[in-house]
Amino acid sequence: MSPLFKEIRGSPILWLLAAVPVVFLAAALFPEAHTALFVLSVLAIVPLAGLLSHATESVAAKTGDAAGGLLNATLGNLTELVIALAALQAGQYTLVKASIAGAIVTNTLFMLGASFLLGGLKYHIQEFNRASARLQAGLLFLATVALLMPSVLGGLDTASVAPVTQTLSLSLAVLLIIGYGLGLLFTLGTHREFFSSADHAEAGEAPWPIGLALGTLAGVTVLVALVSEIFVESVQEAAVAFGMTPAFVGFIVVALVGAAAEMASAFSGARKNRLDLSVGIALGSASQIALFVAPVLVLMSYVIGPSPMDLQFWPGAVMMMFLATVTAMFVTNSGRSAWFVGVLVLMVYIIFATTLYVLPPAVR
Amino acid sequence: MSPLFKEIRGSPILWLLAAVPVVFLAAALFPEAHTALFVLSVLAIVPLAGLLSHATESVAAKTGDAAGGLLNATLGNLTELVIALAALQAGQYTLVKASIAGAIVTNTLFMLGASFLLGGLKYHIQEFNRASARLQAGLLFLATVALLMPSVLGGLDTASVAPVTQTLSLSLAVLLIIGYGLGLLFTLGTHREFFSSADHAEAGEAPWPIGLALGTLAGVTVLVALVSEIFVESVQEAAVAFGMTPAFVGFIVVALVGAAAEMASAFSGARKNRLDLSVGIALGSASQIALFVAPVLVLMSYVIGPSPMDLQFWPGAVMMMFLATVTAMFVTNSGRSAWFVGVLVLMVYIIFATTLYVLPPAVR
Amino acid sequence: MSPLFKEIRGSPILWLLAAVPVVFLAAALFPEAHTALFVLSVLAIVPLAGLLSHATESVAAKTGDAAGGLLNATLGNLTELVIALAALQAGQYTLVKASIAGAIVTNTLFMLGASFLLGGLKYHIQEFNRASARLQAGLLFLATVALLMPSVLGGLDTASVAPVTQTLSLSLAVLLIIGYGLGLLFTLGTHREFFSSADHAEAGEAPWPIGLALGTLAGVTVLVALVSEIFVESVQEAAVAFGMTPAFVGFIVVALVGAAAEMASAFSGARKNRLDLSVGIALGSASQIALFVAPVLVLMSYVIGPSPMDLQFWPGAVMMMFLATVTAMFVTNSGRSAWFVGVLVLMVYIIFATTLYVLPPAVR
Repeated sequence: MSPLFKEIRGSPILWLLAAVPVVFLAAALFPEAHTALFVLSVLAIVPLAGLLSHATESVAAKTGDAAGGLLNATLGNLTELVIALAALQAGQYTLVKASIAGAIVTNTLFMLGASFLLGGLKYHIQEFNRASARLQAGLLFLATVALLMPSVLGGLDTASVAPVTQTLSLSLAVLLIIGYGLGLLFTLGTHREFFSSADHAEAGEAPWPIGLALGTLAGVTVLVALVSEIFVESVQEAAVAFGMTPAFVGFIVVALVGAAAEMASAFSGARKNRLDLSVGIALGSASQIALFVAPVLVLMSYVIGPSPMDLQFWPGAVMMMFLATVTAMFVTNSGRSAWFVGVLVLMVYIIFATTLYVLPPAVR
Repeated sequence: MSPLFKEIRGSPILWLLAAVPVVFLAAALFPEAHTALFVLSVLAIVPLAGLLSHATESVAAKTGDAAGGLLNATLGNLTELVIALAALQAGQYTLVKASIAGAIVTNTLFMLGASFLLGGLKYHIQEFNRASARLQAGLLFLATVALLMPSVLGGLDTASVAPVTQTLSLSLAVLLIIGYGLGLLFTLGTHREFFSSADHAEAGEAPWPIGLALGTLAGVTVLVALVSEIFVESVQEAAVAFGMTPAFVGFIVVALVGAAAEMASAFSGARKNRLDLSVGIALGSASQIALFVAPVLVLMSYVIGPSPMDLQFWPGAVMMMFLATVTAMFVTNSGRSAWFVGVLVLMVYIIFATTLYVLPPAVR
Repeated sequence: MSPLFKEIRGSPILWLLAAVPVVFLAAALFPEAHTALFVLSVLAIVPLAGLLSHATESVAAKTGDAAGGLLNATLGNLTELVIALAALQAGQYTLVKASIAGAIVTNTLFMLGASFLLGGLKYHIQEFNRASARLQAGLLFLATVALLMPSVLGGLDTASVAPVTQTLSLSLAVLLIIGYGLGLLFTLGTHREFFSSADHAEAGEAPWPIGLALGTLAGVTVLVALVSEIFVESVQEAAVAFGMTPAFVGFIVVALVGAAAEMASAFSGARKNRLDLSVGIALGSASQIALFVAPVLVLMSYVIGPSPMDLQFWPGAVMMMFLATVTAMFVTNSGRSAWFVGVLVLMVYIIFATTLYVLPPAVR
């Protein structure tokens, strides 16, 4: 187990792992201390997400190019998926939807924008693979179009619409998963050569032995699932204590917590002038959540949820996802970046966050 | 008449011409057999549309570049126009509007996407004339902006808005026709050299003699008009029998029937690595319907309709047209294509079709 | 004072300065002659705006590159700002908002489109600096996203929303001004070399002496402020007399009057094949109004207005600003232009103007 401990010693963020036992203890002793449990569960999820991400990459590195890419593409957002599954099982569909929309918007705008800004503060002009960015933006656009459809029905007479929305959501979920699968076939299979430099694996890091990696993957997933349950139970009441609206918590806080590990990789890539990596992680994560995590949650709701979940989002959330996608399409179009491009993208994010922050609590 | 018969013998689709006399006979004998009449009229319109398209191209080939282009641009969607005129005369404005919106969306997404996919399955990467694609996408965007305007008024107090919508629709119709005319002056006149390769005429086919072409044009137009009347009368009741919503029929079925002949040309171009041809036919048809057929129908409604028709569409249809246009702007921007670009565009179409299919029948 | 008089003698538009004393006299003698006062104040503002623009450029030319650019960027829309301040002080918030939206749309569509058309009628193909156009379009997009946010709240329960809209508008105003400032740092500071050719100063014109320029700047600003008060008082009643809707007046008439001087420069640049200049003026003015003038007006409303002004626009106006921005993003993407691109952009403007013209008067 030495590489795992070396990893923990070398990376200060992993010291937060100490929060994992503390949060379990606290949840058993003080089940009503929502604010403390919320803070502790956030502190515990961040390093676990980091380990999960590293373990996935190590398994991917062992299994070769195409299978590894597939693995990365499927498990890359395992943290978000596990958190959302915990919320799904608790029947908190509003939180699930807010965290899906928030993850898409946060990855597209915050992770991409901060990468551009951090890279741009060090390098005058940075270039990246346009083909890859355009493809991810196209997938995101596809998902946004799908998520716009239920709201086409939303304005109509509610009584006749509810069952239709459910049928439509199920069909859209299947279509998006098919689109995601064909996208993987394209980027990892037939047209691999166009997307080669958007590789997720960090060059300098030695991958873990396969046994350690698989063990970590399994064990940490269980830990994340357990901590997520505490997180989901405490998040809403903690939000009230902090004076945040539920929309802000679901959209911004959950999304930032879930993506913390990937952000570390994306930002480090940008600082090393490997913007392909950053753009690939940011837009790849966003499109994976939109085309894989969200549809899987719809399908899972039939199995583990109290009732089926549909894909009908709050119109403001749909608008934000659409505008985030258009922003990504626009700024990645030239394949070049400078610090102000990052500012522009981050400003769009801050505008969304501000709007959600002032939103009357009744709304989401 | 030998070239006409040779054409019919050589192309299996034209054997469907046998359906033409059958549909007239059936309409006279069993006027209430709506489902059978619907199927027969579809089977009859498809080969007639093929003949119409070939005759137009033959006349165009004889009359020289600019005049031929003009002819093609004006009569290229004669089938759609004749079907819509039949529906207009019957006062079925909802069907007319659904078929306009459907033709725009179907040509932009299905014809373009399937061309990209069919071409991409044979060739690894295909290139096409960006200037031409961008211009057609720009024209489509202009039309979509125009069609968004009446719905700006749609949310307001209805009593004061109805006459205003009519005035606005008439003005927009005139503006769109002017825009279309100036677009022809640009592509066939002043800046011809930028758009040269987007020629509609198939290289390998010998054009018909001019007399035969003109005669076919006149005769087949009359036949299409007669069959269209049967089609329009039967389509709604047949839809119910097939369990399809009226929106689905107008948007998808009518649009696919009307564009069958052009699709054959577009797909054959894509398989021959002449993607310029395919993109030109797909986006050219869409912009022609948006900027020429739709405004002409508004103007004609004053002459042959029971009351003036406006350009106020169901908001969902407007959204689909807008998203289809944005999709076209996005995928044609690079001037390159691969199979997955086709999948992406087709998926957007399938998402729309699914939404329309599950829509409660009361809505359109 | 000889350069000032030489300027006036040489440029026929400045003969309109004779309208300045006439409008003051008329306002004192016939305060109820709204139509005449409206016409006279328009005639007086146009040449004053021209002088203001020339004086700003002369001061900018003396103070060196970065400071001059800053000055131009801050005072470039002084006329619009002064007119809007007059309307703000009179509590006419609907007029202020319509004139902000109208100035953005008019500069983005009319000034840009007419520049493309006028240039394209003389030159077959014109090229311009894509980087600069893309940046301005990006800033405009940022502003449009911000202006969309209050309308996200607009559909909700009104009672709880009003104070929230005010808080949100104030936050957005501060964010936009920060974005504008960082944009100036980028274009005039760190990445100056990418935007160099988009210089506002006309090559052939000798700048005025600094004393004259500063004196003119101060004196003419006072005159514009005084005439604006008459203009704002008379414009609504004159509109009724001319049969124009208030929306049309605010959007189209006020915007054209305020931007007359800049249009003269933009069009003259296009005719001299200096399209960089035209695109820079058109999109630069639009983004300056969106990111600087509009937020400043919100902040000023706390000081000089009867009550705080928010950034919640009529949904139709928001849609028009968004579509204008998308149009600008689309047509500037290639960095090339021909006459029909101008037609396309102008057609979008005419479609908006027509819609506003037929709008029932109760609406804005």
